[in-house]
Amino acid sequence: MSSNTPTRSPRRAVDAEKHEIKATPETVNWGFFDNSQEPVARVESGDIVRIETVSHHAGDAPDLMMDEGVREIYDEIDQEDRGPGVHVVTGPIHIEGAEPGDVLECRILNLEPRLPYGSNVSANWGLLYDEFDETEYVTVYEVDQETHTARACFQYEYPDLYDTPGRVVDPESVDRHPVLEDVRIPVRYHFGTAGVAPAEDGCIDSVPPGVFGGNVDNRHFTVGTSMYYPVQVEGGLFTAGDSHIAEGDGEISGTAIEAHVDAVVQFFVRDDLDITTPVLETNDHWMIHGFDEDLDEATRNAAIETVDFLQNNKGLSETESYSLLSVAGDFQSTQVVNGVKGMHCKVPKDIFPRDT
Amino acid sequence: MSSNTPTRSPRRAVDAEKHEIKATPETVNWGFFDNSQEPVARVESGDIVRIETVSHHAGDAPDLMMDEGVREIYDEIDQEDRGPGVHVVTGPIHIEGAEPGDVLECRILNLEPRLPYGSNVSANWGLLYDEFDETEYVTVYEVDQETHTARACFQYEYPDLYDTPGRVVDPESVDRHPVLEDVRIPVRYHFGTAGVAPAEDGCIDSVPPGVFGGNVDNRHFTVGTSMYYPVQVEGGLFTAGDSHIAEGDGEISGTAIEAHVDAVVQFFVRDDLDITTPVLETNDHWMIHGFDEDLDEATRNAAIETVDFLQNNKGLSETESYSLLSVAGDFQSTQVVNGVKGMHCKVPKDIFPRDT
Repeated sequence: MSSNTPTRSPRRAVDAEKHEIKATPETVNWGFFDNSQEPVARVESGDIVRIETVSHHAGDAPDLMMDEGVREIYDEIDQEDRGPGVHVVTGPIHIEGAEPGDVLECRILNLEPRLPYGSNVSANWGLLYDEFDETEYVTVYEVDQETHTARACFQYEYPDLYDTPGRVVDPESVDRHPVLEDVRIPVRYHFGTAGVAPAEDGCIDSVPPGVFGGNVDNRHFTVGTSMYYPVQVEGGLFTAGDSHIAEGDGEISGTAIEAHVDAVVQFFVRDDLDITTPVLETNDHWMIHGFDEDLDEATRNAAIETVDFLQNNKGLSETESYSLLSVAGDFQSTQVVNGVKGMHCKVPKDIFPRDT
Repeated sequence: MSSNTPTRSPRRAVDAEKHEIKATPETVNWGFFDNSQEPVARVESGDIVRIETVSHHAGDAPDLMMDEGVREIYDEIDQEDRGPGVHVVTGPIHIEGAEPGDVLECRILNLEPRLPYGSNVSANWGLLYDEFDETEYVTVYEVDQETHTARACFQYEYPDLYDTPGRVVDPESVDRHPVLEDVRIPVRYHFGTAGVAPAEDGCIDSVPPGVFGGNVDNRHFTVGTSMYYPVQVEGGLFTAGDSHIAEGDGEISGTAIEAHVDAVVQFFVRDDLDITTPVLETNDHWMIHGFDEDLDEATRNAAIETVDFLQNNKGLSETESYSLLSVAGDFQSTQVVNGVKGMHCKVPKDIFPRDT
């Protein structure tokens, strides 16, 4: 058994330097990644960073999802400075010593909502848009902090095509009506979009995920887990945003429950892992991601990446890995609505002996 | 909240009539369903039936996977009587009173291996066949009854194209070598293929799954769960086979760990459920199936079926259901190797109030 099994770095908060990055018009980008940008912070491997993330869906319920800081971002970043994607992402953060060939581990220490509300859109880019007469709906959910669940507050038909990042809808202009009154959703905060800067130069659309991470939308990326990203450029240049209160694997309507979330994360530069796609480690599983516009191809890519992962990190042969995945690996749809779709393979950790 | 929520029928073994169907050349079909066949048994709703199922993969390791009864089936059912599919299925069982429009509930009371061995094939119909230089491998696993896990005994390269149902490979003719020595797979017995008879007349290929069930390959169909099948023909005409020791969601190499399993099931004719696709109920979830040759379309079909399921059985509106699925429903690949692929949506039961 190989000794370089991916294992989350210890939390080690006691001797870590701490940083804070508030979300302001100066520390966020709206809709893109750009590896030539000046970092908003420079940190060392092992440092802890509090990162505020702001949702691009605050305009769906401005009375509930906008405070002064959020409004400042919406007011000061003009439409022409938004795009080509839709997400507000905070960063980039330069991690000292991260070089292409390394892996950046982002360990989630804490996630808390800035405001206890979030928006789900049944959107024109959702899976069943044509089944719903090409009508779009916004459903606003509220977090009950005590039970760690969310309930739907109301739903309304979107007044126009949902195609303008950050458009603010006047609450008085729509018909908000109660829905899902007896339903409670388990809260599972996570970043929808996070990762290192893409290798490709220029202003890169934030919507399609890729080897650098980005809009991966893996709902299992919760507190206590670590995502491993293959570093693409010097310093890694981490960004995060598009946070969610809850999401189902697949994110079929086009969005999760989109919300502002304050995160505390710890970064580690790792040179002991051999991966070529984002890999999530939870208490019980590794999840290896595959991407493609076609879900069959995304599944195939996830399978190939997972065979490689087991070969390179667990010392199995190619034919051992393939058989193992067919009898013990679970393929789940990460999301099917980001143009480039995602499939992840869940490999249980307890089928292997404990690392010595 | 609607009162006709799917709920598994009570086990109620105390007053149930018991039946037994041994797997013999007379009680199994090899590779097909046919709704004109004489039933091998007639039972009432609530009856308990012990059903022996025999694998079509015993020839992969005849020294370990064949006893007298299995050999009799392989000897007496000629090649020309096998096909167009590959699975050995036991039945059909006529359930009194089951009519088109009803739902047949198959509740799994017990599953035990007939022999403690099973075969996984990395097959020509598997997802990564071309990645493996079009070479096929058989991996034989053994169950450790004490720890309820399976370990790989050996692997060998298949001597020819794996295209003949039930071909027996001489153990001396292949190079069996140990693999996966440190790995232990959790055992999760289930039927790969089970369901009611298709509505379509004639000899129906057992490989592609459909509204009647068949080769659904849902690994979560374990002891304590119930699968609900929309009845297609009078009496239901239940068959089961293609049993597995373990499978990963996706079954990517082309097979699970294929084995002979003795099942004890209880049937209930239900007229209180409104479903148009097979639905599995576990302790924690409903799983609603979608099928198509294209995985994107299978996902879409699973989404549509699940929206319908929530509308018809949980009293939600279409737009409530759609939002709910995007924030709390998990889409998982059931299998991607049966020609017609499967995706199921897992809906957690505890997001709803308890039924009164």
